[in-house]
Amino acid sequence: MRTGTNLLKVKDYNQRLVLEIIRLGDGASRVEIAERTGLTAQTVSNIVRRLLSEGVIEEVGKGRSRGGGKPRVLLRLRPGAGYAVGVQIDRDEVRVALVDLAGRVVGRRRHPLAVEGPEDVVKLAVGAVGEVIREGGVKSGKVLGVGVAAPGPLDPRGGVVYGPPGMEGWEEVALREKIEAACGYPVVLDNDAVASAVGERWIGAARGVRDFLFVYAGWGISAGIFVDGQLYRGRSGTAGEIGHIPLDPEGPVCGCGNRGCLVRYCSPREITARVRRRLDAGEESTLREIHGRNPAALDYEAVRRAAAAGDRLALEEVGESARMLGRALVGLANTLDPEKVVLGGRAFGGVGEVYRREAEEALGRVLYPGRRQVGVEVSASGEEAVALGAAALVLHDSYAPRMQGLEAL
Amino acid sequence: MRTGTNLLKVKDYNQRLVLEIIRLGDGASRVEIAERTGLTAQTVSNIVRRLLSEGVIEEVGKGRSRGGGKPRVLLRLRPGAGYAVGVQIDRDEVRVALVDLAGRVVGRRRHPLAVEGPEDVVKLAVGAVGEVIREGGVKSGKVLGVGVAAPGPLDPRGGVVYGPPGMEGWEEVALREKIEAACGYPVVLDNDAVASAVGERWIGAARGVRDFLFVYAGWGISAGIFVDGQLYRGRSGTAGEIGHIPLDPEGPVCGCGNRGCLVRYCSPREITARVRRRLDAGEESTLREIHGRNPAALDYEAVRRAAAAGDRLALEEVGESARMLGRALVGLANTLDPEKVVLGGRAFGGVGEVYRREAEEALGRVLYPGRRQVGVEVSASGEEAVALGAAALVLHDSYAPRMQGLEAL
Repeated sequence: MRTGTNLLKVKDYNQRLVLEIIRLGDGASRVEIAERTGLTAQTVSNIVRRLLSEGVIEEVGKGRSRGGGKPRVLLRLRPGAGYAVGVQIDRDEVRVALVDLAGRVVGRRRHPLAVEGPEDVVKLAVGAVGEVIREGGVKSGKVLGVGVAAPGPLDPRGGVVYGPPGMEGWEEVALREKIEAACGYPVVLDNDAVASAVGERWIGAARGVRDFLFVYAGWGISAGIFVDGQLYRGRSGTAGEIGHIPLDPEGPVCGCGNRGCLVRYCSPREITARVRRRLDAGEESTLREIHGRNPAALDYEAVRRAAAAGDRLALEEVGESARMLGRALVGLANTLDPEKVVLGGRAFGGVGEVYRREAEEALGRVLYPGRRQVGVEVSASGEEAVALGAAALVLHDSYAPRMQGLEAL
Repeated sequence: MRTGTNLLKVKDYNQRLVLEIIRLGDGASRVEIAERTGLTAQTVSNIVRRLLSEGVIEEVGKGRSRGGGKPRVLLRLRPGAGYAVGVQIDRDEVRVALVDLAGRVVGRRRHPLAVEGPEDVVKLAVGAVGEVIREGGVKSGKVLGVGVAAPGPLDPRGGVVYGPPGMEGWEEVALREKIEAACGYPVVLDNDAVASAVGERWIGAARGVRDFLFVYAGWGISAGIFVDGQLYRGRSGTAGEIGHIPLDPEGPVCGCGNRGCLVRYCSPREITARVRRRLDAGEESTLREIHGRNPAALDYEAVRRAAAAGDRLALEEVGESARMLGRALVGLANTLDPEKVVLGGRAFGGVGEVYRREAEEALGRVLYPGRRQVGVEVSASGEEAVALGAAALVLHDSYAPRMQGLEAL
């Protein structure tokens, strides 16, 4: 994948390894870096000197020493040494975030989208990228690249989007190429779930966590999977489609051909449809008024607001969705044995705690509970999680050590 | 993990990488090795010379060259350069296999077990290890080590078995240490599913496959997962417990606290219980006679033999098990996106094709079928799969390149 490697001059594997440890730690000392990489103190020292002189990292105060030796100088990335732009392309909006190396959002843009074709969306997105960079006063030479997150299916290697559900005119769009040509920065593309997962690993709830599952719930539901510190993509690059885990042999038929898939219980559309049916059947709810006025106006936003405000009917249906997600998660935890599950994406907005509670209860029934505790957290990044994650893709791609030799096997 | 590394003198990372490519290929040339490792031709040449002179590898004929150049000499492991012993400890038997570097079984032993404690089993197993080595005429210096596979849960790093279901007296047994002390060879321990998966990757249906799922069905059902060419163990080392994927919210209550877990449909005991209930209800089957004579004599062996012979009732119950496994597999395939699923273990004996067919049908409903085809195969190793896999553990552990630096992160 092409990336903004030239600016940070991430030349060799050892340097990348050192940078990765500095990036993931809250300040790392030279001694600690040597211990964790297995590199000699001399090699670490040389790499650190080079990175310091290039302004990529900086020294920040002193850490405690173990065993009473003299305190150690801690190193961290210099936030202003580089920036990345994250672009989220969703069905109804484009969000752009300019992020520094410390993960701070220093500029943002949000444009609602009527349903539009790729050309218009690319123009809008690239315009917004230029604006945040200009307004942030960031020199273009400091922009490492642009990360773009779009709904899947897509091919991150080829940079091609393959007709995500609900997006017409997006059958086989070379999105990365188009944006790259229009904005002039190196571009990486990935799906929204993967981007958010990378963002959480960078500065969110999964910081420093090597094995975790990020559950992304937007229009549908899917996951970004980290295995042993690396993003897991699967054979064809389409890993993480947890929305199509079958949960009930008697459940509703799904578009994929199976019955009772997770997405049939959890998607905003299905939850909303269940609420509507119960309102049609005359059940009580604070949503009766909207529904009576105009059934079409009763959307998922209304349902989750009502649930957050304690409406029984809305809460029951969100709870049903959360219970089914919990069942899927316990199966995944038994199979993958992660350290943590992080829940993020718009569908959790305002009702994240309902999902977290159900997930936690379900994960309490994981096999060998004495030997593994699977934590659950709701992402703190909120609505900006995907754009932030898209920016993180640029850094992840630059820094994450990858073994060329192994990949070739 | 301690291994027989000293004999093959697997000193450095580059050498392990070269050996791994030679091991996984059906003959690899120096040029190919250089291309795939990214090592220089000179480095590859030096490593190959050393391995040849030590008798670890040998030259075998010539491969076709690409583009009409002169044919290339192919390299492979010299089968007799080393041996590994695999030990399977199961609830009712101990199996031992002596295996050469080409994966050929050159000696075997099988002892039925009455229910016995760890001390007796260790004695029996170590005795059998000595016998196969002696009978095979293999010098002890050529034995790289002993791989032991036992039912989980167990801790492969610590070498400790933690009370597998159905094995009394096995709560926290330091099995590796005990066997090592008694036999004098380096010992590695892992669970039966993982061992079989490593065996399949070595010389079975998953040879050269980087992302696959090995489904092991014995007493219960679990999986060995290969991700990007490496065994995936999870955070606590207990990954692969697919038997506790919940498949039906209205299903039978499981010991883990959930409802409708896969193992409730697939375990030999459950299948047999379902058959018994239908016979009690008076249904027709070729199993009526055994059942009438002595219901306790109607075991899973009888059921699967009847199914293999075409008995409708037995086939229906095995089919129900296979359908539920298929549902679990399509969820796993959507999540993990593997290249292949391999089915192995005693419970598939004689009825593997029933499972394969259902799995294939279910996997045909995977998401994005155009972009991913998930193959299904039944292991050809049959009843010897676990012992063979246990031997493969020794070699896997010696050869599989591992990044110390990355592991420390």
